[in-house]
Amino acid sequence: MKKVTIRDVAKHAGVSVASVSYVLNNVDKITPETKKRILNAIKELDYKPNMMARGLSNGKSGLIGICLPITEKGDIPGDLLENNPFFSEFISGIEYTTRNKGYDILISGLGKNMRYKDWIQRRMMDGLIILGVYPKNLFEEIKGLDIPIVLSDAYEEYAMDFHRVMINDELGGYIATKHLIDLGHKRIAFVSGSIKNSFINRYRYQGYVKALKEAGIKTDKSLIFEEHVTFNGGYSVGEKMRQSGCNATAVFVAADIMAIGLLKSYIEANYKVPEDLSIIGFDNIKFAQYSIPGLTTVKQDIFMKGRISAEMILNDLEDGKRTNHSVILQPELIIRESTAPPKKTGK
Amino acid sequence: MKKVTIRDVAKHAGVSVASVSYVLNNVDKITPETKKRILNAIKELDYKPNMMARGLSNGKSGLIGICLPITEKGDIPGDLLENNPFFSEFISGIEYTTRNKGYDILISGLGKNMRYKDWIQRRMMDGLIILGVYPKNLFEEIKGLDIPIVLSDAYEEYAMDFHRVMINDELGGYIATKHLIDLGHKRIAFVSGSIKNSFINRYRYQGYVKALKEAGIKTDKSLIFEEHVTFNGGYSVGEKMRQSGCNATAVFVAADIMAIGLLKSYIEANYKVPEDLSIIGFDNIKFAQYSIPGLTTVKQDIFMKGRISAEMILNDLEDGKRTNHSVILQPELIIRESTAPPKKTGK
Repeated sequence: MKKVTIRDVAKHAGVSVASVSYVLNNVDKITPETKKRILNAIKELDYKPNMMARGLSNGKSGLIGICLPITEKGDIPGDLLENNPFFSEFISGIEYTTRNKGYDILISGLGKNMRYKDWIQRRMMDGLIILGVYPKNLFEEIKGLDIPIVLSDAYEEYAMDFHRVMINDELGGYIATKHLIDLGHKRIAFVSGSIKNSFINRYRYQGYVKALKEAGIKTDKSLIFEEHVTFNGGYSVGEKMRQSGCNATAVFVAADIMAIGLLKSYIEANYKVPEDLSIIGFDNIKFAQYSIPGLTTVKQDIFMKGRISAEMILNDLEDGKRTNHSVILQPELIIRESTAPPKKTGK
Repeated sequence: MKKVTIRDVAKHAGVSVASVSYVLNNVDKITPETKKRILNAIKELDYKPNMMARGLSNGKSGLIGICLPITEKGDIPGDLLENNPFFSEFISGIEYTTRNKGYDILISGLGKNMRYKDWIQRRMMDGLIILGVYPKNLFEEIKGLDIPIVLSDAYEEYAMDFHRVMINDELGGYIATKHLIDLGHKRIAFVSGSIKNSFINRYRYQGYVKALKEAGIKTDKSLIFEEHVTFNGGYSVGEKMRQSGCNATAVFVAADIMAIGLLKSYIEANYKVPEDLSIIGFDNIKFAQYSIPGLTTVKQDIFMKGRISAEMILNDLEDGKRTNHSVILQPELIIRESTAPPKKTGK
């Protein structure tokens, strides 16, 4: 059977090819009656527009790109999604939102030596969502693109040129620490990735300091531990904490995946959680609920972050303009079994 | 600056547009000398072919599609990736393999009422990897497509028309059960999703039965539990096992995510694992290592499954023909802390 073309549809409906194109591309230039006639013709002929051909004529691909950082150090190749449940949940939220609007999502890992702008332009993506941390030149390169772009958790100055979706990290750090203080803890450790290199960690740390200050507790540098934001990073902080003799009765770990590593390290060393050490995480990844004991944590609604990112892009596409909004979600305390009052010592 | 076109490249190299196109599309129709001249022109002019335009001329999009099942029942919308670590790890393997070959991956959830073939054709995907279970008509619809297609873990007859990547499920079930028998267990429960509706579960069950038979242990129907393959499904099986009085001293759970739910259910009910119940899972998802106690399991190399799927597609594309291979990976026993000999009772 011969493939039905846009010309056939135009002929069948008795209109110009341009009119059919307007309908296909949702351009509001024809009367409702004509539109109806064209839609009928499309239906009767079972016409299927080729997305590539459409993309060339209207500059739209129907693709929304998601960029993830490639971190190919060490022995494990391409730990793109598998080591970071955060990404999977974020992508789920995007996919859920775009699915019913006829968009597909394109996932790509961005490496260090890529020419970002080329890649984006070649694929003619309609919008872009960037997760993770990248060299600054990425953002300089893509600033001039006229498609809506969303950055996740980006506090840097260059981020102001884009949509942003984030969580109130300082408030999250404050809530976590306040929960431990309210339970009666005074020796509260703080664990995160680099405080110097990451705004996210810095703000969570500031929330920690703020809560301590309010309670009249002095910040103690021997209670601060920085490590890789991985299960193994948390595990090794556990060992360090015990060796250091820091005498913490509680710890705020600024990422669940690290908190779970730290928890396992303490349990394996025959400590009891929460009896010997209260642990509170940050994120509320799925495993926070699965772990034994269940991990008390500060929830950020990652799925919602994905949904909002997608919605910001879809809104811009619908309105035909690029805007730059910032959405800051609120964190929420989720109390499970890993936190409790400190043990009474002596009498 | 004016955009450099294929015409500019042809002019610069002193060849026809068709010759440039041959080079871009790796068609072997020109001399090495001419090819070199064209490649130089491309470099000197900094020519960037538009992938969409290329796609229209050579029928290739540079896109490999990954289909995931949409399961939108219940209250949680779009639990596409977040509830299933298996998918994330599989996709990582695909992404890792395709990244350096210049392909991008397109992820889409396939719903019940989709016209699958339309979707695939509209996107002009070069290859397709299908994860999860779908209605039979999907496969009938796409059988005639002339792109390489890989199915994961598909035993059905229709799967023979496609590439397949799978694991030896029966052997996996056998290894798991044999491990428990070797430890001295005789009352060994089996937990999985529907044995009737899933070949995967059926083969793992057959492996379980085979190992019992070899050891002279009779299969006991009161030790078989079927439930949803989720954390909550495993948790509820735990409650059922205790209520049923089945007296199992060990259990083989045919999916880690269920095993972790079952583990938590027993710990919360004040049982000790492995002292009161040995638990072995299947998959070796990341959580298996994070859990306390660490989960003994049968490893299937999910990342490798993703890599092989992508390689089967890339090989076909390189050779310019569609083949149908089956790759069956071998399972491997990973012993952690959740299994031990049964408690000695009496004297």
